[in-house]
Amino acid sequence: MSKTRVLTGITTSGTPHLGNYVGAIRPAIAASRAPDAESFYFLADYHALVKVAEPARVQRSTLEIAAAWLACGLDPSKVWFYRQSDIPEIPELTWFLTCVAGKGLLNRAHAYKAAVDRNRAEQLDDDAGITAGLFMYPVLMAADILLFNAHKVPVGRDQVQHIEMARDFGQRFNHLYGEHFTLPEAAVEEQVATLPGLDGRKMSKSYDNTIPLFAPRAELKKLIAGIVTDSRAPGEAKGTEGSALFQLYQAFASSEETATFAQDFADGIGWGDAKQKLFERIDAEVAPLRDKYEALIAKPADIEAILRDGAARLRAQYAAPTLARLREAVGLRDLSTTVVAESKVAAKKDVALPLFKQYREADGKFYFKFAQGERLLLQSAGFDSPRDAGQRIAAIKAGHYDASDPRVLRAEGVDEDDVQAALAALAEAEESKS
Amino acid sequence: MSKTRVLTGITTSGTPHLGNYVGAIRPAIAASRAPDAESFYFLADYHALVKVAEPARVQRSTLEIAAAWLACGLDPSKVWFYRQSDIPEIPELTWFLTCVAGKGLLNRAHAYKAAVDRNRAEQLDDDAGITAGLFMYPVLMAADILLFNAHKVPVGRDQVQHIEMARDFGQRFNHLYGEHFTLPEAAVEEQVATLPGLDGRKMSKSYDNTIPLFAPRAELKKLIAGIVTDSRAPGEAKGTEGSALFQLYQAFASSEETATFAQDFADGIGWGDAKQKLFERIDAEVAPLRDKYEALIAKPADIEAILRDGAARLRAQYAAPTLARLREAVGLRDLSTTVVAESKVAAKKDVALPLFKQYREADGKFYFKFAQGERLLLQSAGFDSPRDAGQRIAAIKAGHYDASDPRVLRAEGVDEDDVQAALAALAEAEESKS
Repeated sequence: MSKTRVLTGITTSGTPHLGNYVGAIRPAIAASRAPDAESFYFLADYHALVKVAEPARVQRSTLEIAAAWLACGLDPSKVWFYRQSDIPEIPELTWFLTCVAGKGLLNRAHAYKAAVDRNRAEQLDDDAGITAGLFMYPVLMAADILLFNAHKVPVGRDQVQHIEMARDFGQRFNHLYGEHFTLPEAAVEEQVATLPGLDGRKMSKSYDNTIPLFAPRAELKKLIAGIVTDSRAPGEAKGTEGSALFQLYQAFASSEETATFAQDFADGIGWGDAKQKLFERIDAEVAPLRDKYEALIAKPADIEAILRDGAARLRAQYAAPTLARLREAVGLRDLSTTVVAESKVAAKKDVALPLFKQYREADGKFYFKFAQGERLLLQSAGFDSPRDAGQRIAAIKAGHYDASDPRVLRAEGVDEDDVQAALAALAEAEESKS
Repeated sequence: MSKTRVLTGITTSGTPHLGNYVGAIRPAIAASRAPDAESFYFLADYHALVKVAEPARVQRSTLEIAAAWLACGLDPSKVWFYRQSDIPEIPELTWFLTCVAGKGLLNRAHAYKAAVDRNRAEQLDDDAGITAGLFMYPVLMAADILLFNAHKVPVGRDQVQHIEMARDFGQRFNHLYGEHFTLPEAAVEEQVATLPGLDGRKMSKSYDNTIPLFAPRAELKKLIAGIVTDSRAPGEAKGTEGSALFQLYQAFASSEETATFAQDFADGIGWGDAKQKLFERIDAEVAPLRDKYEALIAKPADIEAILRDGAARLRAQYAAPTLARLREAVGLRDLSTTVVAESKVAAKKDVALPLFKQYREADGKFYFKFAQGERLLLQSAGFDSPRDAGQRIAAIKAGHYDASDPRVLRAEGVDEDDVQAALAALAEAEESKS
């Protein structure tokens, strides 16, 4: 059985904090241990360039984030762990996708629209100060995902649109050049644990209210001492509802510990004592990780070697062969095959693989056919959108071929068994690919 | 003396025709023989993907254009001759430039605006059917140019804007990350020989009025026979003004031959005879090239090898080391240098190279300084635009340092000789680089 490919990118523009740990690192590493998943984790340093023009910060952040994930238990021998900028196939695929991406769709990206709205609020030109990087990063993100034919991309709700864009670009490419890309699904984390920061708002670099994940003990203690509380004195009962201190504790504690801490609140624990308990609870979980982190970060050359090794293996197994196929598909080909290329490919396909092909006719409708080499097996009627046609293909591939469907006709001399045999061959081939 | 780097790209989306030959290939190959130029010619196949989603056509066109340039005398041992898609540094640099390119500037690109205007004329959405490829190709083009620090890019008047954009993106990058890019100049060919096509309009694929450069003799003759003329009978005097036939002849003939042909017109040569003369004149020039072309195109593997060799040498000499420097500049760095990187770089620079650095202050103005390692030599006042600051730097570099300029002050303890010595060291270093 083929594994589900799950892909996660982390932009290398800051220092990991407790919010990142609870909301992203800890759950992602737990998920990476699932036996039915093939996990891809990458340091999105090309993305960092969209936001950060501080070279030393990009470098430092890359090191810190890599060390943090490794310290927290990511096993680079069991998952793909790599740095985006070590995969030159990503910017190349970004260009291929740029050539199929609809500009109108990019206009509607939330991050871009928010920047335009801010400009309008300040009565500036719509695009004042906006770089093409902000506008185009959904295409880069699509390349990150499609290059590895990822099935699932765990994202917050605000990122769902980007996955839909990746699907759209992948679908357009498939439509023009044949079925090359798996269309990814957003795995929306409805219940992402968001952690309050020092001031009670969501912990976030942009609010400057974070607690660095690997702050030294003394600093951790001092930062926790600065968490905002109300002014109730020791002995007064305290509510847990809306208490940042309590929520932070809960994110690290078992349910028994949490219940005990709630009782402490009801019993009127002093804020100083409560903060000490929180500090001890967090430090109990973080201290062993911090030791690993410090050992790792003291040897940056080892981390560099781990990342390069991951990228080298990943390129050999996925990125390079995939890009070679895509280059062939778009026409960036060895010139020595020019004259005979088409027939060679057809001959190979004839033996190797039946194929669904989507295309558009002069009537503006979207069609597909299913063929094995030169032999046509199925011919569809026209659909109103490439999506409709694609869904029908997906259904047929998934085993729902309906021989009586008036919109999917068998070619002359083709019977239902021929179709089923070709579908089985295709399924087998796709199975062995993944 | 360093050579002027001249860069020319040819989009691989069609078959070379006589108009390409007269307007581009013939003059470019003549220019490539100039002793003071280092010429770069590349097959712009990434650009072809913006316009053409026909893989076989892209491949075929790449072969035909490569063979045509070689047949017409381009010497790959004397110029850089390569295929864009063999240089992975180009898409990577495209991303770096995307991150600094102003979206507002791209909105004003002629090709994009023309597409929007067509949509408006048809009452469609502004961006209907427009891909991000059309919108972003000025950034790809900037990467083509800036990667090799080209000085001159020969272009038609319609392309000047793209060179200005490349300058703008290069300047923004320099401003953020230090002086990495030479800003290119458009070498505008005011007098590009444009050739009329079969119907008298400019010969262009989009008018479907072309004569393929290497059409077989019989086809060439037939096509020439189809050139539109007026209906004057043999014996009637004919005007040369506005005669496509005459202009075509002139593009291939000496001035003596042209004068004789004009006399033939005045003497009432029949159109059939005139076309025969035109055919013979063109064929006299093209036939030996056609023989070479046919020999070349019969061995596509040899052309493939020539292109790969050109790209491999060019990557080793220019693209790879340049991109390594740019990656370092933006912060995509070996992690093992993280902690000590800044001081190392400073130490190296101290020995190696004084440096101009542009930056922006909180007052919104643009400043520069000139420093050698940690030692500040010059400090500018604030300029209103990065361009103004850049022009002052360029003037100083060009030898126009004015010790009494109130807007460029020497740092304490720095005298004029120190500045001149540092400028000389910088000039020498830049000389040896290029």
